Amino acid sequence: MSATCTIGIDLGGTNIKGGVCDERGTLLTRQSIETEADRGVEHVLQRMAGLVEELLRATGLGRSQVDGVGVGAPGPMSHARGIVYSAPNLPGFVDVPLREQFAALTGLRVVLENDANAAAFGEFAAGAGKEVRTLVMLTLGTGIGGGVVLDGKLWRGCFDNAGEVGHMIIVPGGRPCPCGQRGCFERYASANAVAERLCEAVRGGEDSVLGTRVAAGETLDARNVRAAADQGDTLAARIWDETCFYLALGIVNLRHLINPELVVLAGGLINAGPRLLEPVQSHFERQSWTIAPDAPRIAAATLGTDAGTIGAAMLARV
Amino acid sequence: MSATCTIGIDLGGTNIKGGVCDERGTLLTRQSIETEADRGVEHVLQRMAGLVEELLRATGLGRSQVDGVGVGAPGPMSHARGIVYSAPNLPGFVDVPLREQFAALTGLRVVLENDANAAAFGEFAAGAGKEVRTLVMLTLGTGIGGGVVLDGKLWRGCFDNAGEVGHMIIVPGGRPCPCGQRGCFERYASANAVAERLCEAVRGGEDSVLGTRVAAGETLDARNVRAAADQGDTLAARIWDETCFYLALGIVNLRHLINPELVVLAGGLINAGPRLLEPVQSHFERQSWTIAPDAPRIAAATLGTDAGTIGAAMLARV
Repeated sequence: MSATCTIGIDLGGTNIKGGVCDERGTLLTRQSIETEADRGVEHVLQRMAGLVEELLRATGLGRSQVDGVGVGAPGPMSHARGIVYSAPNLPGFVDVPLREQFAALTGLRVVLENDANAAAFGEFAAGAGKEVRTLVMLTLGTGIGGGVVLDGKLWRGCFDNAGEVGHMIIVPGGRPCPCGQRGCFERYASANAVAERLCEAVRGGEDSVLGTRVAAGETLDARNVRAAADQGDTLAARIWDETCFYLALGIVNLRHLINPELVVLAGGLINAGPRLLEPVQSHFERQSWTIAPDAPRIAAATLGTDAGTIGAAMLARV
Repeated sequence: MSATCTIGIDLGGTNIKGGVCDERGTLLTRQSIETEADRGVEHVLQRMAGLVEELLRATGLGRSQVDGVGVGAPGPMSHARGIVYSAPNLPGFVDVPLREQFAALTGLRVVLENDANAAAFGEFAAGAGKEVRTLVMLTLGTGIGGGVVLDGKLWRGCFDNAGEVGHMIIVPGGRPCPCGQRGCFERYASANAVAERLCEAVRGGEDSVLGTRVAAGETLDARNVRAAADQGDTLAARIWDETCFYLALGIVNLRHLINPELVVLAGGLINAGPRLLEPVQSHFERQSWTIAPDAPRIAAATLGTDAGTIGAAMLARV
């Protein structure tokens, strides 16, 4: 193995994932450990450093053979300053100069990146986007994370906040978002929004096979809605189709503003496979202009939960 | 004068504007002639070539002292291929290899660019954006033209169609657009949309001092609406305020996707000055998140109708 390896760390509220990548984004080894976030910042940083040691041991690499460590962390954060401003799922992570502290702990050069950006860069480097130079990735989970790669480079924007696709407003005066805006894309097309919108419709008096579970206060997720639609539930099918409509609308906007070659969909919702991709494609074709042949391809991510680790490692390359 | 001058040509349906710029985007001379578009492609190209000769004569520059000519043309067109695919206001301009033909006519290197992109690059190089590296410009006229400059470079996208901000969908299933979509940004926030929406409201039975003119089938424009609002007309004031609301919403979306330092507003609507900029700023602050301090500055363009000429010249620099 050569000196062109880098390490990627994907710091989440529950798990810390780590891996060693070669220059093509191939994972040579990977591991996942619990974050133990409730034990505080110092403890989490120590666990991350321990994970780096284990990855080095597993690959037999010395420090001199590793070009750097990329860390994907939840935001808001600053790549340029190397600071995590706050991370709701990581108690104590307020204005933490993570880049500097982790470099001191590991003796390695550290690059800090937003986790959604890291995942997008992973799919660009070694996943669904490895044949293109320009893509936008949408991670459909609790919200909608976004990442924008333009001509081979992550576009971070002037304030390290580009690609916050989930907070594009698509319904003026629409559903309130915890961010303070109304009508954000992620209030309509994230995995969580699917379940929320079904529960609201049931509470508003609409019939569904999920009605009794909603009434019992059960926490439903997008899979429950998809399963109900598969069983012929009219409301669930409508909510699912509306989700695909809104997703397509967001992609129309990316087409016109950024004009990417590819839009990659990732996150929980893509487990539905063609039952997501086919209606999204069909709504996209119906809603979007036909006056210029500039439509991006729409495809599912291929790296699963490794995207963030691989992307973080690839962003650490000099 | 040195060999670092370039010529910019702004090809419009009514006029052809041309100018010579130095390396800082200062116009050394400029001229405007009628397009005489009805006389066909060959004639228009000859007039453009004649304009280049006059500009050279006016500045005393020889061909060897000019680095190239940039031509801003209405789209759809391709910068990469140097072809105008079609231009609604220029009869006969269908699949015209303008770059090649105009280079042959003038003996100069030619760069072809979308006119909205050229104008945005002009404001970046020498106008409202000359202190920043990243901006989005919105030209509020018949529609909404857009141009995106990222870190000092025009972002054209993968199909030469980035920055088509006017066709971002902001109202699902909203007002139909000639492009084939519904709810496009420019159906709500262009100069034309202001007048159209007022006329529709009047025809729908709402009162306005402009009512009799609408009933008489007069063609109103945004200035009429602004003037009526100034006279205390409630409907005109509401339509104007809604326009500012939608403009702000579009800028919120640019903030989150592209995260520019500056959004430049240009075109007919900015003649309203603070009566446009102040409500847009206020709606922007009310609608947009406050969780990260990443708001762009919103400012009016400063180059007026020279922006396209200057931008085309600056894009022709090697």
